[in-house]
Amino acid sequence: MSDTDTATHPSKNVVEDGSIDRLAIDTIRTLSMDAVQKANSGHPGTAMSLAPIAETLWTQFLRYDPKKPLWPNRDRFILSCGHASMLLYSLLHLSGTIEVDEHGQPTGKPAVGLDDIKQFRQSGSKTPGHPEYRDTTGVETTTGPLGAGCGNSVGFAIAERWLAAHFNKPGFDIFDHDTYVFSSDGDMMEGVASEAASIAGHLKLSNLCWVYDSNDITIEGDTNLAFDENVIERFKAYGWNTILIEDAEDTAAFAQAIETFKATTDKPTFIEVRSIIGIGFPTRAGTHKAHSDAPGEDEIRGAKKSYGWPEDEQFLVPEKAKAHFEQAIGRNTATREAWEKLVGDYRDQYPDLGKELDLMLAGTLPEGWDAALPHFEPDAKGMASREAGGKVLNAIAPAIPWLVGGAADLAPSTKTDIKDGGSFEAGSYGGRNLHFGIREHGMGAAANGMALSYLRSYTGTFFVFSDYMRPTLRLAAIMQVPTIFVFTHDSIGVGEDGPTHQPIEQLASLRAVPGLDTIRPGDANETAYAWKAALDSQKTPSVLVFSRQPMPTLDRTKYNSAEGLLKGGYVVTKDEGTPDIILIATGTELGLAVAAAEKLAEGGTKARVVSLPSFHRFEVQDQAYKDSVLPPSVTARVAIEQGSEFGWDRYVGFAGKTVTMSTFGASAPIEKLQAKFGFTLDNVVKVAREVMGK
Amino acid sequence: MSDTDTATHPSKNVVEDGSIDRLAIDTIRTLSMDAVQKANSGHPGTAMSLAPIAETLWTQFLRYDPKKPLWPNRDRFILSCGHASMLLYSLLHLSGTIEVDEHGQPTGKPAVGLDDIKQFRQSGSKTPGHPEYRDTTGVETTTGPLGAGCGNSVGFAIAERWLAAHFNKPGFDIFDHDTYVFSSDGDMMEGVASEAASIAGHLKLSNLCWVYDSNDITIEGDTNLAFDENVIERFKAYGWNTILIEDAEDTAAFAQAIETFKATTDKPTFIEVRSIIGIGFPTRAGTHKAHSDAPGEDEIRGAKKSYGWPEDEQFLVPEKAKAHFEQAIGRNTATREAWEKLVGDYRDQYPDLGKELDLMLAGTLPEGWDAALPHFEPDAKGMASREAGGKVLNAIAPAIPWLVGGAADLAPSTKTDIKDGGSFEAGSYGGRNLHFGIREHGMGAAANGMALSYLRSYTGTFFVFSDYMRPTLRLAAIMQVPTIFVFTHDSIGVGEDGPTHQPIEQLASLRAVPGLDTIRPGDANETAYAWKAALDSQKTPSVLVFSRQPMPTLDRTKYNSAEGLLKGGYVVTKDEGTPDIILIATGTELGLAVAAAEKLAEGGTKARVVSLPSFHRFEVQDQAYKDSVLPPSVTARVAIEQGSEFGWDRYVGFAGKTVTMSTFGASAPIEKLQAKFGFTLDNVVKVAREVMGK
Repeated sequence: MSDTDTATHPSKNVVEDGSIDRLAIDTIRTLSMDAVQKANSGHPGTAMSLAPIAETLWTQFLRYDPKKPLWPNRDRFILSCGHASMLLYSLLHLSGTIEVDEHGQPTGKPAVGLDDIKQFRQSGSKTPGHPEYRDTTGVETTTGPLGAGCGNSVGFAIAERWLAAHFNKPGFDIFDHDTYVFSSDGDMMEGVASEAASIAGHLKLSNLCWVYDSNDITIEGDTNLAFDENVIERFKAYGWNTILIEDAEDTAAFAQAIETFKATTDKPTFIEVRSIIGIGFPTRAGTHKAHSDAPGEDEIRGAKKSYGWPEDEQFLVPEKAKAHFEQAIGRNTATREAWEKLVGDYRDQYPDLGKELDLMLAGTLPEGWDAALPHFEPDAKGMASREAGGKVLNAIAPAIPWLVGGAADLAPSTKTDIKDGGSFEAGSYGGRNLHFGIREHGMGAAANGMALSYLRSYTGTFFVFSDYMRPTLRLAAIMQVPTIFVFTHDSIGVGEDGPTHQPIEQLASLRAVPGLDTIRPGDANETAYAWKAALDSQKTPSVLVFSRQPMPTLDRTKYNSAEGLLKGGYVVTKDEGTPDIILIATGTELGLAVAAAEKLAEGGTKARVVSLPSFHRFEVQDQAYKDSVLPPSVTARVAIEQGSEFGWDRYVGFAGKTVTMSTFGASAPIEKLQAKFGFTLDNVVKVAREVMGK
Repeated sequence: MSDTDTATHPSKNVVEDGSIDRLAIDTIRTLSMDAVQKANSGHPGTAMSLAPIAETLWTQFLRYDPKKPLWPNRDRFILSCGHASMLLYSLLHLSGTIEVDEHGQPTGKPAVGLDDIKQFRQSGSKTPGHPEYRDTTGVETTTGPLGAGCGNSVGFAIAERWLAAHFNKPGFDIFDHDTYVFSSDGDMMEGVASEAASIAGHLKLSNLCWVYDSNDITIEGDTNLAFDENVIERFKAYGWNTILIEDAEDTAAFAQAIETFKATTDKPTFIEVRSIIGIGFPTRAGTHKAHSDAPGEDEIRGAKKSYGWPEDEQFLVPEKAKAHFEQAIGRNTATREAWEKLVGDYRDQYPDLGKELDLMLAGTLPEGWDAALPHFEPDAKGMASREAGGKVLNAIAPAIPWLVGGAADLAPSTKTDIKDGGSFEAGSYGGRNLHFGIREHGMGAAANGMALSYLRSYTGTFFVFSDYMRPTLRLAAIMQVPTIFVFTHDSIGVGEDGPTHQPIEQLASLRAVPGLDTIRPGDANETAYAWKAALDSQKTPSVLVFSRQPMPTLDRTKYNSAEGLLKGGYVVTKDEGTPDIILIATGTELGLAVAAAEKLAEGGTKARVVSLPSFHRFEVQDQAYKDSVLPPSVTARVAIEQGSEFGWDRYVGFAGKTVTMSTFGASAPIEKLQAKFGFTLDNVVKVAREVMGK
């Protein structure tokens, strides 16, 4: 091959052969293809096609200091098309990003060394297949599931606006950073990104810039197989500033677009960049074969030749390229140092806010914050846990100013508003109550982004709609960020709205997620401890499951303290010795279990009541504690929960039974449903007697 | 009050006071408010505001015969804003729709009588809180979870295009119906509706019309709290024909818009109708208080007064109004009768297609279809179940022409293409392979709509992305429609793509869904039976979980038949008497269990291997069968599955153990992951010995 045609060769309109930028761009490209080839798996094409604009953004615009990669006021760079992870790893390598631990302390290693790149996609490496938060310094959020990064980014942008509104003072722009997203056709097709874009447009988040890699290629072939909408027009409809770049090689046009973004103060910016996937590959460029899998030696040699690169070299990083990149991005060191000085002065001038800032940045809570947790008096009529949850939230909100959240158009029902917190809106970015609209998935993704930006974020919707936002719960658990997901209307207790609105399998299905703490408190005081558990968590996302309908507030002089919730499960009844039977319950069924135990006592049966609000917490207790709550010798056990029976066998065993749901619910007043599905005192007592063989 | 102001009073530009249409409209409105008031719960406002256009659509346009409500070529009316269910119940009542059983046979009752309306939201009524498919004749699909109806509607429209392309012949337009959707602000915000709209625009589904009730009100207050995008412009960007109606009272403009829809042949139509929620209520009209809850006597009396309605009457249905409505919609009876005659002639002229049509409409499969199921020869190296699944699908596809499906841009990986089936595209609507794009939620919703329109529909994507489309799996189960959801790449076997792409909790979380048959076959022959199980299901949706990586094809002369899959679980080893230990496995771990049993046999241990591909099927077997597979006396049990341990206690009990996952996976080649997480012969044998105390 002597020449490559224009379809496969980078156009030359801006980055000319021989320029130092071109050298850096081609370094990214060749590292990406070499790494994929060595791993024999991965996605080279997009990393190659986006290299010019990525290099431009990082060397000219991104406010990021590789020497202090966790600097709080850095710009964020999110690779929503996470499959192109080699692009990000190449950038982290070229920028000379140092590795730091989660407190920002250097480990003495590079974030991504050349050896790490050679270990791409290998066990235990810092270069996994998709970018994983916590695995690699410089990865702002875990991406890969398409749309996720776009969704997160709105949370990053919300957080910056809130932090600026809350902390900035005249002369002290502590927060004024931007968030950039690189995204792909897949991101544009996913509904979560549509929801996120609509929220961002509504909130006029002018600190947010999405770059859309429009390459006409997906896995099944050309995008026109399934996607021919006008994306630019769609974003205009969302209220975004939109820019089309005809050629990803045209870095001058891209730089101009970023300037436009930075000059725009009343809306987010969307930049569609038309690119050729796998640019430079002799036969695969511009085809779906460039998307994934090792390209093969011929393609790689051909591409390198087209770049004027030594064809025999692998993992070549020209010193000049690295020096250029490091020097260009090194401009931010002074900016960062100035910021640190500014914060020092800020601490002097605003000591209270300075202290708050330090606590927040450290991921800790104000000492004694939990003194504000309310105590609820015994009350046979009781209250709904959503009601108690709202009271708890409002009691603790003053103590944790950076507790910020909102609901998916259900705040009056979920009781998740912080009263007097104000609405977070364009023009009032200091508000603590977000109105996410009827966009659960976008809400969860944004909340994760907020949690990644220091805020203690929470969401609110009906429990059944956890299904709509499930991918975000999973990502919170994978990333180990302590987002708090409040879900109310947690069972057939929803009543008349019927089966589509009555959660059944949701408890079981969330309990199955590793690293997710699903808590369903059994009275108002357990609800207070549920909020405490969630807020004390630094690496575990929590799901707080609250009822629509009231439940008794137990008399804790008569029963053991609700603090037992923190261990996941505890003995509620103050029983001595070995019980005849154990009744295990959660949420609204705790009161029923207590009543059943009393009834059984009348017949001379010693029934222990165990509250088990969190399987997750209980499972990590030591065996001795677990055995003290559920003595192995007592196999007569009944679990009571208005949810799926699935998963309860762990605690009731072969000899036990459950009073749970095995079908969907129905539309009827709650009392009718409880009778229909067996959640009555008589039925629980009956089942308990069956288990005891009486 | 003598006069109501213009904000709360219906404008008079078309439907004049005293007109018969106005009488019907006000009947719908007053029935809706009376029913909500009596039930003391529900959503009156939207039913009231949409009454004029609903009445216009039904009396002037909808091709629907209340005497034969399941007539296959009827237009479909979908109330995506299902909370406004009283609108639909009122329409079914006024139209005189008769109740039929699922075969279309009359039961002798009205679909919705006045007594049913008085039982709104009560236990066992035909008028549940949200419209439930199968509960009420005339409800085309279950709606309530927002966006769901919009998503379904695309499937209805796809089905009509496919049925027309497949069955119609010159002079025989057997299928030529339209699908109408009434939707709300919430539908417009949900990502699933965005995905669905993009698909519909791409496919140029000109038989699809969405009416969007734009009333500026949601539960938290004005929609401008969270929603101010330009919806019309967004739909233009999707490639839709768009029309804005300034006033929902302007029925002439709405009729004109429907005429435009019917004349449009190259794109779907989107009609935004601006309305006043709860129109007529003296104080609640146009506010979020009109959205839900009983309005109270004062509001109701005020509204009735504003309509010129007898204020003291409740559930009043003027005879004139009902007669008018029945007569107007009665025009379709002749159309339907002509269609039946046409089909009769069609059967004569095209007997093969006629027979196919009858089978399909009856929800049955051609006799002997399963003779085409392939048998796979024993093979120690074996094949991936996705590979086997693709072979099975292609083997049976010729036998079931109306088996139609597609993937979310992963067909080359999921192997769900029907070779030679052609693509379903604008201009080739007879194709059997849909390209849904990277829109899993929209795909699932469309597949349910297709299943509700006679097609045997299936979807394809990676198993981890089942999370994106979970609400549609749940709705399939609630509706009892046999949609087939194929998911591949079912475990850490995904390898290098890492934790975001490796399903862990997905198996458990789907097993917890009532009425959903989740099947993970353990070799190629089990895969064939998995497809058989799914296709033989008439009321149960199936989830087929296939591996990326190969597994051995067992020698069924040595082991029991894979047909055991149909019972959910069966003994694989041809063992006699009581085993020392039972190894239970699914999917790729079945081969591992078999190998472990052989290894244990070398040490003199009699190990039974049980394959348990479907908990759902196994649980409904009689106790004797279950005990024969898992003898209660044998408590030494080990379950092996590359998924969450959650839910396995049911089968292993307190005395057993599992080799399962309790964390997320990692990015590495598959062999490394299997070693890391214990899915090795040595580890399984070790755990088995631990369980036996050896």
